[in-house]
Amino acid sequence: MSLDKVLAHIDADQDAALARLIDLLRIESISTDPAYAQECDKAANWLVDDLKSIGFDASKRPTSGHPMVMAHGDQQGGTHVLFYGHYDVQPVDPLDLWDNPPFDPQIEDTPNGKVLRGRGSSDDKGQLMTFVEACRAWKAVHGSLPCRMTFFFEGEEESGSPSLVPFMKANAEELKSDLALICDTGLFDSRVPAITTMLRGLLGEEITITGPKKDLHSGMYGGAAINPIRVLSRIIGSLHDETGRITVPGFYEGVPEISNALRAQWEDLRFDEAAFLKDVGLSHLAGEQGRTALEMLWSRPTCEVNGIIGGYTGDGFKTVLPSVASAKISFRLVGTQDPFAIRESFRTMVRDMLPPDCSVEFSDHGASMAGAFDTSGASFEAARKALSDEWPDPAAYIGCGGSIPIAGHFLSILGTTPMLIGFGKDDDQIHSPNEKYDVESFHKGIRSWARILAALT
Amino acid sequence: MSLDKVLAHIDADQDAALARLIDLLRIESISTDPAYAQECDKAANWLVDDLKSIGFDASKRPTSGHPMVMAHGDQQGGTHVLFYGHYDVQPVDPLDLWDNPPFDPQIEDTPNGKVLRGRGSSDDKGQLMTFVEACRAWKAVHGSLPCRMTFFFEGEEESGSPSLVPFMKANAEELKSDLALICDTGLFDSRVPAITTMLRGLLGEEITITGPKKDLHSGMYGGAAINPIRVLSRIIGSLHDETGRITVPGFYEGVPEISNALRAQWEDLRFDEAAFLKDVGLSHLAGEQGRTALEMLWSRPTCEVNGIIGGYTGDGFKTVLPSVASAKISFRLVGTQDPFAIRESFRTMVRDMLPPDCSVEFSDHGASMAGAFDTSGASFEAARKALSDEWPDPAAYIGCGGSIPIAGHFLSILGTTPMLIGFGKDDDQIHSPNEKYDVESFHKGIRSWARILAALT
Repeated sequence: MSLDKVLAHIDADQDAALARLIDLLRIESISTDPAYAQECDKAANWLVDDLKSIGFDASKRPTSGHPMVMAHGDQQGGTHVLFYGHYDVQPVDPLDLWDNPPFDPQIEDTPNGKVLRGRGSSDDKGQLMTFVEACRAWKAVHGSLPCRMTFFFEGEEESGSPSLVPFMKANAEELKSDLALICDTGLFDSRVPAITTMLRGLLGEEITITGPKKDLHSGMYGGAAINPIRVLSRIIGSLHDETGRITVPGFYEGVPEISNALRAQWEDLRFDEAAFLKDVGLSHLAGEQGRTALEMLWSRPTCEVNGIIGGYTGDGFKTVLPSVASAKISFRLVGTQDPFAIRESFRTMVRDMLPPDCSVEFSDHGASMAGAFDTSGASFEAARKALSDEWPDPAAYIGCGGSIPIAGHFLSILGTTPMLIGFGKDDDQIHSPNEKYDVESFHKGIRSWARILAALT
Repeated sequence: MSLDKVLAHIDADQDAALARLIDLLRIESISTDPAYAQECDKAANWLVDDLKSIGFDASKRPTSGHPMVMAHGDQQGGTHVLFYGHYDVQPVDPLDLWDNPPFDPQIEDTPNGKVLRGRGSSDDKGQLMTFVEACRAWKAVHGSLPCRMTFFFEGEEESGSPSLVPFMKANAEELKSDLALICDTGLFDSRVPAITTMLRGLLGEEITITGPKKDLHSGMYGGAAINPIRVLSRIIGSLHDETGRITVPGFYEGVPEISNALRAQWEDLRFDEAAFLKDVGLSHLAGEQGRTALEMLWSRPTCEVNGIIGGYTGDGFKTVLPSVASAKISFRLVGTQDPFAIRESFRTMVRDMLPPDCSVEFSDHGASMAGAFDTSGASFEAARKALSDEWPDPAAYIGCGGSIPIAGHFLSILGTTPMLIGFGKDDDQIHSPNEKYDVESFHKGIRSWARILAALT
């Protein structure tokens, strides 16, 4: 079957493809906030309808949280490919930093080309639609796909994926395939496409420290009563030592050094640390001493505070000595670090630091191991060649600082090798105001998948 | 003129006096939040009207913030007494912890007697109305007051009093008196009334630390980019040493030890530390090692964090690496500690702790020195005897952990000795949800002032 005709169809259908994506982006599918549950359901319905319209047997599958979407193609032979993406998005606050409303996506001209701006444009609706559009083009041109196909869309990726593992276990037979394609990662840069072969794991913990049983007047009680903000600050301040290493006991068990071969390959990428930092207003690497930026981002674990609140935070001043203070803390994990062992060690460390009269509550916000995937199979080289044909420079095998737990689940639950290919860019501002996706990423992303499907048949 | 008739009138007029106070408490005069500016103005108007109704020459005086209220009586001879109070109140958050709406005051029966519950019931509308009602009763019974009288009400006490000093300087002649009465303090306990002769000063600072120029994804940047919450936590964690002493350089300059005589007097009060702590859910003193609770509260300086915020603080989890984190920090001062020198030292210390790529902004939320007032004048013993006549046990000279900058201003700007007498209780929950004022405090407070006015003639 002709690939060229499929690519030509993709080029001709570009405006319509963008319009479909904009339609999906208008749905406010913020999974972490219960107020948006109906919008998540609406996004799932939208995908079911779209997949049905191009001939897939698509359905919405209930979970105890937001629904999954599954779909099967009618092609029976060839490589059985499963494609995964997520239709949920991050919250939009701080809303006042958005130039346009986050759910009213706009195409903008920028010095680096056209971009589509809106929440989810890159993470992950824009990315998942590159694959859907590639399939649509194959079906439009040839009436069939080049291989057997299953779709699997999740709606809880941005909120810890509570339903994912139970669903995968309960539907393992239906989800099994030869290869699991995941489109939730990025290009190395605008010339170099990438297959991501290392992902960091993620452990999310919320800690809430209570001191006095009610808010107090800091004049009437200050000096005598314990202040939970001070306790929380001291705990957070002790999580790293002066060299940037994390102090949770046992934290570095299972953290490997990368191989010399991989180190050499990463050096060849000539990553521009200064430009990477400058882009976000920084000039110094703030992580572990003696590590390169790519090590800090791809192969070293982290501990970050993602949010903190306590006491009076409105305008003006209030001399309150608060009863409660809380923080959201996450750990990025690498190698074989055990998130559950680290959670226990972290909680013990926090409890041990509590002064008298303070209590702590912990909330679990997900735990996943890091992943490193075997690239020796023929499909990896086939995909790498297909990507290299579409983009200016050859494709690279890279790491990713983010956490995509689904990749590890495919391997551990289903025994399926995951292959992570995506077209996001570092400046996409995912999880931030003014998220965008380059129109070129969307267009060449669709073309890339069309080529990869041809290569995998 | 007969005091007994005045006291009898107060007893008979009690329900009407409570109704007037409830009327004033319905006005939402939160001074720190610009959204409530009109309500502050309304409270000022209410006081002007009420003072006019009992024969005072009352007027509202504009400032660059909320207005002052001033009023003069027509009595010319005798001791010239000025009475100060403030009509503004603290914010009400967290609103969901109030059993009743904060501005819909209710009289409740409790195991300790009737209380009036609502924002400002104790701090300071209920307190200031004890004096207004005492004057009303004198006027009703005798047609005149026992001494020359000036009223001075402020509407910015809970928001750092930005207009107070300029106003006092510009109106010094009008504000001069023989004695400045201030009703914004408490009883020692329900049997022992008190004249407060030591007040702590207050320095309020807000610090905002910026790292990356925008919020980042903690996977894509975590480990390499600086996190301002971590920087802020480390700074806060370093403000105290392991013994509870404050580490700001030069902070303890001007902190005196109390005299042996005062120490002995405070010991005689047999302050119940355990009960004081237990009342707010605590069992350990958290301040400087080797100090008693009364020292920690009355004669030692403090540093407290009154609020902190940064990153994602909503429901669920968001793996953001935030651009900004901020905290509201206040210092209670004693002796001759210089708030302006401490502000500079604190700001230098914070700047010195900043890692590369971080910047800090400071906002000034007020600065006042501590006060210790000479009790040797005849009026102090007269007032102490009058209070002792009203309450079960003799009145005591005590300290106060809170800051009432106006007291120092009367002394330094006008040369007038302040006398601090109030009827609040430790469990009034001022600045907290469910603030209340005992109906007994209100009733016996009015009677106390009636007695003091008679004693000061």
